[in-house]
Amino acid sequence: MQSLVLERQGELSLRDFPAIDHDEETLGPRDVRIRLHTVGICGSDVHYYTHGRIGPFVVNAPMILGHEASGTVIETGSDVSTLKPGDRVCMEPGIPEPNSRATRLGMYNVDPAVRFWATPPVHGILRPTCVHPEAFTFKLPDTVSFAEAAMVEPLAVGIHAATKARIKPGDNAVVMGAGPIGLVTALSALAAGCARVFLSDVAQPKLDIGAGLSRAIIPVNVAQDDLAKCVLRETDGWGADVVFEATGSPKAAAGIFQPLAPGGCVVMIGGQPDPIAYDAGAAMVREARVENIFRYAHAFPRCVNMIASGAIDVKPLITRTFAFSDSVQAFEIAASAPASDVKMQIEMPQ
Amino acid sequence: MQSLVLERQGELSLRDFPAIDHDEETLGPRDVRIRLHTVGICGSDVHYYTHGRIGPFVVNAPMILGHEASGTVIETGSDVSTLKPGDRVCMEPGIPEPNSRATRLGMYNVDPAVRFWATPPVHGILRPTCVHPEAFTFKLPDTVSFAEAAMVEPLAVGIHAATKARIKPGDNAVVMGAGPIGLVTALSALAAGCARVFLSDVAQPKLDIGAGLSRAIIPVNVAQDDLAKCVLRETDGWGADVVFEATGSPKAAAGIFQPLAPGGCVVMIGGQPDPIAYDAGAAMVREARVENIFRYAHAFPRCVNMIASGAIDVKPLITRTFAFSDSVQAFEIAASAPASDVKMQIEMPQ
Amino acid sequence: MQSLVLERQGELSLRDFPAIDHDEETLGPRDVRIRLHTVGICGSDVHYYTHGRIGPFVVNAPMILGHEASGTVIETGSDVSTLKPGDRVCMEPGIPEPNSRATRLGMYNVDPAVRFWATPPVHGILRPTCVHPEAFTFKLPDTVSFAEAAMVEPLAVGIHAATKARIKPGDNAVVMGAGPIGLVTALSALAAGCARVFLSDVAQPKLDIGAGLSRAIIPVNVAQDDLAKCVLRETDGWGADVVFEATGSPKAAAGIFQPLAPGGCVVMIGGQPDPIAYDAGAAMVREARVENIFRYAHAFPRCVNMIASGAIDVKPLITRTFAFSDSVQAFEIAASAPASDVKMQIEMPQ
Amino acid sequence: MQSLVLERQGELSLRDFPAIDHDEETLGPRDVRIRLHTVGICGSDVHYYTHGRIGPFVVNAPMILGHEASGTVIETGSDVSTLKPGDRVCMEPGIPEPNSRATRLGMYNVDPAVRFWATPPVHGILRPTCVHPEAFTFKLPDTVSFAEAAMVEPLAVGIHAATKARIKPGDNAVVMGAGPIGLVTALSALAAGCARVFLSDVAQPKLDIGAGLSRAIIPVNVAQDDLAKCVLRETDGWGADVVFEATGSPKAAAGIFQPLAPGGCVVMIGGQPDPIAYDAGAAMVREARVENIFRYAHAFPRCVNMIASGAIDVKPLITRTFAFSDSVQAFEIAASAPASDVKMQIEMPQ
Repeated sequence: MQSLVLERQGELSLRDFPAIDHDEETLGPRDVRIRLHTVGICGSDVHYYTHGRIGPFVVNAPMILGHEASGTVIETGSDVSTLKPGDRVCMEPGIPEPNSRATRLGMYNVDPAVRFWATPPVHGILRPTCVHPEAFTFKLPDTVSFAEAAMVEPLAVGIHAATKARIKPGDNAVVMGAGPIGLVTALSALAAGCARVFLSDVAQPKLDIGAGLSRAIIPVNVAQDDLAKCVLRETDGWGADVVFEATGSPKAAAGIFQPLAPGGCVVMIGGQPDPIAYDAGAAMVREARVENIFRYAHAFPRCVNMIASGAIDVKPLITRTFAFSDSVQAFEIAASAPASDVKMQIEMPQ
Repeated sequence: MQSLVLERQGELSLRDFPAIDHDEETLGPRDVRIRLHTVGICGSDVHYYTHGRIGPFVVNAPMILGHEASGTVIETGSDVSTLKPGDRVCMEPGIPEPNSRATRLGMYNVDPAVRFWATPPVHGILRPTCVHPEAFTFKLPDTVSFAEAAMVEPLAVGIHAATKARIKPGDNAVVMGAGPIGLVTALSALAAGCARVFLSDVAQPKLDIGAGLSRAIIPVNVAQDDLAKCVLRETDGWGADVVFEATGSPKAAAGIFQPLAPGGCVVMIGGQPDPIAYDAGAAMVREARVENIFRYAHAFPRCVNMIASGAIDVKPLITRTFAFSDSVQAFEIAASAPASDVKMQIEMPQ
Repeated sequence: MQSLVLERQGELSLRDFPAIDHDEETLGPRDVRIRLHTVGICGSDVHYYTHGRIGPFVVNAPMILGHEASGTVIETGSDVSTLKPGDRVCMEPGIPEPNSRATRLGMYNVDPAVRFWATPPVHGILRPTCVHPEAFTFKLPDTVSFAEAAMVEPLAVGIHAATKARIKPGDNAVVMGAGPIGLVTALSALAAGCARVFLSDVAQPKLDIGAGLSRAIIPVNVAQDDLAKCVLRETDGWGADVVFEATGSPKAAAGIFQPLAPGGCVVMIGGQPDPIAYDAGAAMVREARVENIFRYAHAFPRCVNMIASGAIDVKPLITRTFAFSDSVQAFEIAASAPASDVKMQIEMPQ
Repeated sequence: MQSLVLERQGELSLRDFPAIDHDEETLGPRDVRIRLHTVGICGSDVHYYTHGRIGPFVVNAPMILGHEASGTVIETGSDVSTLKPGDRVCMEPGIPEPNSRATRLGMYNVDPAVRFWATPPVHGILRPTCVHPEAFTFKLPDTVSFAEAAMVEPLAVGIHAATKARIKPGDNAVVMGAGPIGLVTALSALAAGCARVFLSDVAQPKLDIGAGLSRAIIPVNVAQDDLAKCVLRETDGWGADVVFEATGSPKAAAGIFQPLAPGGCVVMIGGQPDPIAYDAGAAMVREARVENIFRYAHAFPRCVNMIASGAIDVKPLITRTFAFSDSVQAFEIAASAPASDVKMQIEMPQ
């Protein structure tokens, strides 16, 4: 039984990791033990591999990667009432302090004490088993596959963004950025009521993937076209009711208000290491509302529900699947950022 | 050139109606003149035919029926800027007083001065042409047919209900009543973000039509099954996040809180002539929010946008189409309330 | 050391209550032990005394009364970090299950598992000391007296109601009912932004007390005047933006929409044992929003903050204070419902 | 009969202004003619005087100044129903296009076609009379003086900001900037439900005026103290629920998130000619909501209502009053920005 260990920047190994590979993690009364089945590779996993850090989080000791996961419950704590061994589940990777002020207010994602998988010094779950709180473990209906379930984590970002936007049915939206988060945001915006999504990027292959997801997604290649002009032209000069910024690019962020309609909403999803240029005048004359989001809260059961009912289809986003034994190679491919891939997943030995 | 005239309760005739059949309506500077193309038959049209009144609105003089309409602009007033002859359009049937307090606040639908087609003494539009304000006339993209466009009016009720509910993506909803308004509400709830809609009725044929619209619509025949039990069983005991009451039945209205989740929302759509029994205790322990809606506001362009993009498909709801010359027969059939029909439409001579 | 014990319906005694009078309650790691200082008498305390039950909650065994309380921390559990012995505090009387779905969503008040002081079989706090969770115990600034702090519990109902109403500054409100809850609601509505509050009751002495609290409170004696007519006359025919129903009277509840403005909000505060007559037609033409509230959530620190800053002054509502040794007599007086009293309080021996 | 005319940058004259001094303005059917009584001097009036322009608005021809005004109706158009000669009124200075999309949605303030008094080329109202739409003219109760009524315009900015913030009762707020707009915002925040307002500025005299308005206003001199540290210390490390940016200073705007609580709201009031540095990371970890506001909408009747009921007292902000014959001198004093003044007003000859 092995784990995928980031030994240090640039060095991965598939190896026995004694501390947690041997079912030795303590199972609390409200915890479950889970055998991992499918784990998606996230950009942050790759970034730790290639750079050894993300902002203030530095890999100072070997760390297991992975935080987008599904699996099967194999043991339950004494007070667990909603799950039993054999249940197929997906897991929310961040665990807050249950008694913090933010958690009690229902905003556990902004609790500074959150422990998040594969964020130093917390290990991820590219390993045989893990122990997780019942409250952050979600049972899957039969109609949701392990692969779809491992997509719930990135999808939750899009669903949280769409929720914060307070979309009204029939809204037009812009999603800036056609990477994995941009694409789940576009799907989420449509599922949450938007009539149309203008999807912008400079990479045509990514836009082509987006355009293939729905005829309500309208690709705009901003290497050639002006996004705001395009949106205004297609909306009788009114603009988009919602703009989702999912690039993390300062340049894109500087233009968030240009395509926005009066009274519209901008949702900032992409992280920005440095302050961005905020066009307060453009925001003012539109009375723009700006929602800044951090991961998600209460979104996992909603995502499972939507995948199960067919309200959202994430399968087209899973473009490659690897056996766990090939996971080092999978990360090397992911690090090369192939334009035709959205989400790569790893299947664990069962 | 003829109109469909309700001469009095129970008597319809297709005849020349001099006052408005001869293009003599005055065209104001912000009005357009429209040649009617397709007109849907609404339950209220049928009710005026069979009962001669709806609540305080009594048919005391011959009145032209019809208010769900699409057509083609044939003339424009001097100040009209967004429409031109030849434009295909659909029309919002209620025109408020532009300077009323409610209208200025953006809630024109609750302005008591609204004049609404086919509500005595205002004529409807089963006639060759009509004059209408530009502001309540909406251009159709090429991808929206006249038949779909004549569905915008009933769809607007569902979209308004879904908007007021403030659905969060992944919510579970109940729609009570599988008539035309129940069905557009179910489609609207799904399009607005619901993962699943539990659709209840006592008529199995109506439920079958509903279930055929989407696999996310779950029919519940309340002649046989208990709605609340069914919803609670399917939601791990939590209940539905939103309950839409679209029956207008006092008995159904008395049970709106039973399937509702804590913190959930009830939207009252169906009209109720008498006070209903409101279970304040059940509402209290859930901290239910109840939204009472009246027609719609600002919904038409949203509906057109959603039909055009494919976000909502209303075509399966159009179950029969009649030539205008057969419109008296169409109303007789509609008055018999055939269980296998949702929406009947009449095509006007062009 | 004695407690005030409701032995059975109609029989109170001040006596030693061995089970909890001897500091024998277990102190958990996140609990504090508190010496009670001031306890307000609530209508529900009196109702248990006079009727032996409230709805499904029946007094089957001797029960200590009281749930509106302030006191001093005398001992802290090992994990307590925000409180220390000597801190002056007030306490929220309902303790939810921390892991319930409602609690995690931030709506702990609608958690069915809430344990609430002086609600059978849970004892109240007219006793020397109690043990309470740190999370529901709130430190008092020096500027807030014990007497004011014991008013936080009823005030929290008004503040919760005002919060749910989503008052906009300058709104006009109606508060139906000038009892203690009606008065705290009127104060809360003003503090939360209302310009004026129309306060209705049939008892002139209660209205006089209300009118004395602020010149923005306008009393309406509904034994003589028609509430809706009065409100419409004073608001240019528009109506009140918010109506708070705080009588619990079915007759009053039947008229909640008559004084309501288009787009307005009704907040149902008063409990109703039976279904009420709900004028769905009147609700519909106004597109009324109805919020049904149950106690309060997250309101205590807000109330303390507002009392401390002077944003709300509850002192005029405290009309009589008794020594604990006179508490049986206090209840007898309270049971006679003197019209000139709002809140009676009992001071515990220190 | 004379007007106060800005002939060009730096040059004011009190003179006959033939085009509009002679009651020659056309009175439309929905207009009223008003004799001006009191006019406040706004910073924008002074800025046009001292700089000849504000952003894109350039004084290219003589322009009458003034837009904060009250007066008396002297003539009414044929369709006016709510006002009559002799009514004392205040007036909203911006008139939108009634048929624009923004206006119909209830957001007339973001209609680009708004015509605003004393914004080139539109004249202001430091003149004998003006013609104004009934819909933007608001009758004063007897209890509101002309001087208070001329404060409604700046107060409306604060009330609109407080409305957009969606304050919950008991919130703590920060108001950055203790100029006239900062002060009306502080009063509005308190009136709208805040328990406390931390008011920051570098000018101690302004802070002293603010602190004198209410004991719930806590001055913070940011020339000496760190605002965020102060707020966090006074709120147990949680931060302020709302931050109002009313300085227009890029440096202040760069720090808006530092004192903000998790889930908190920033309202941007102060205009910024250039993009500001937006700390997206700080916004993200708090899930901040940012509301950008532009003037106000639907706020005037709310302000009148609050002044009339005593919910807000603007009288302490009126620090000096001039006769119209001294108005050039008044502008010279205003241009010197005396630290001990908040609002100067001019009384017109009656």
